[in-house]
Amino acid sequence: MIQQIDHIGIAVKDLEEVKAYYEKSLGLKCEATEEVESQKVRTAFFHAGEVHIELLEPTDPESPIAKFLEKKGEGIHHIAFRTDNIEGQLQHAKDSGVKLIHEVPFEGAANKLVAFLHPKSTHGVLTEFCMEKPD
Amino acid sequence: MIQQIDHIGIAVKDLEEVKAYYEKSLGLKCEATEEVESQKVRTAFFHAGEVHIELLEPTDPESPIAKFLEKKGEGIHHIAFRTDNIEGQLQHAKDSGVKLIHEVPFEGAANKLVAFLHPKSTHGVLTEFCMEKPD
Repeated sequence: MIQQIDHIGIAVKDLEEVKAYYEKSLGLKCEATEEVESQKVRTAFFHAGEVHIELLEPTDPESPIAKFLEKKGEGIHHIAFRTDNIEGQLQHAKDSGVKLIHEVPFEGAANKLVAFLHPKSTHGVLTEFCMEKPD
Repeated sequence: MIQQIDHIGIAVKDLEEVKAYYEKSLGLKCEATEEVESQKVRTAFFHAGEVHIELLEPTDPESPIAKFLEKKGEGIHHIAFRTDNIEGQLQHAKDSGVKLIHEVPFEGAANKLVAFLHPKSTHGVLTEFCMEKPD
C-alpha cells in the first residue's frame, strides 16, 4: 500500500545556488547534503511537512540527471511514493500493465529499497517506489 | 512559514484514463472531481499521506494546462506549498529576489487563497503558495 509521498526529486544545475534559493526564498531548512556515487549526483535534502525535497546535481556528464538537464532543463525529476511492501507494489503495477524500469528493488540512499516505473507507463511522471529496508 | 506540501499538480491529456492509472496501478483512491471554470480545467484529486495529487485536464485550448501540454507533454505542472501567512510568504520571496506571477493572492479552488511564483525565479519548478481562507 502507498503510505505517503516520501520525496520529490528536483534536477538542478548548481546545487549551492538552488539550495540558497530554497533556504532564503522559501525559508526551508537544509537537513543534509550527500554525494551518491552510484547515481553520480550530489544531493541536498529539505523537508516540508512529511515530504522531503531532494535537490539533485550531476557530478558527471553520464549521470541520468545530467541527461535530464540537457533534454528538459532544471525542474522536477521524479516523485517517490513510500510503500510498506515494495515487491507487492511493483507486482501490482506490472499486473495492471505498467512497464517497470527495475523489476527488482535495489538499495538506494538512506537505507531504502527503491525501484522506478517507466514514465511512458505513468503519463510523464517518473515514479519511484521506496521502502525502509527491513532489519 | 511553509507548513507542508499541499498538493502536486499534474497536467494530463485524458482525465479518465490517468485517473484509472492512479487508481488501478498505484492503488490510490480518487476523492473528488471538479471542473474549475476560471482555470479551464477538469480536475481529479487523490491523496497520498498529507499531500493531494491534483490531475489537471484542459477543457479549452486557451487553458494554461493546454499550453503546458503542447510545449512539454504530460507531467508534473506545479508544486503548492501550504503556508499560514500567504502575504508574508510572498513578500519574503519577493524581497529575496523572486519574481512573482501574482503579487496579490486570489481565490483558488477549495476555499483557498493562492498565488504563483515565476518558474524563471524558481529553477524550473512552477511554485504555488496556498492558504486556507480566514473565516
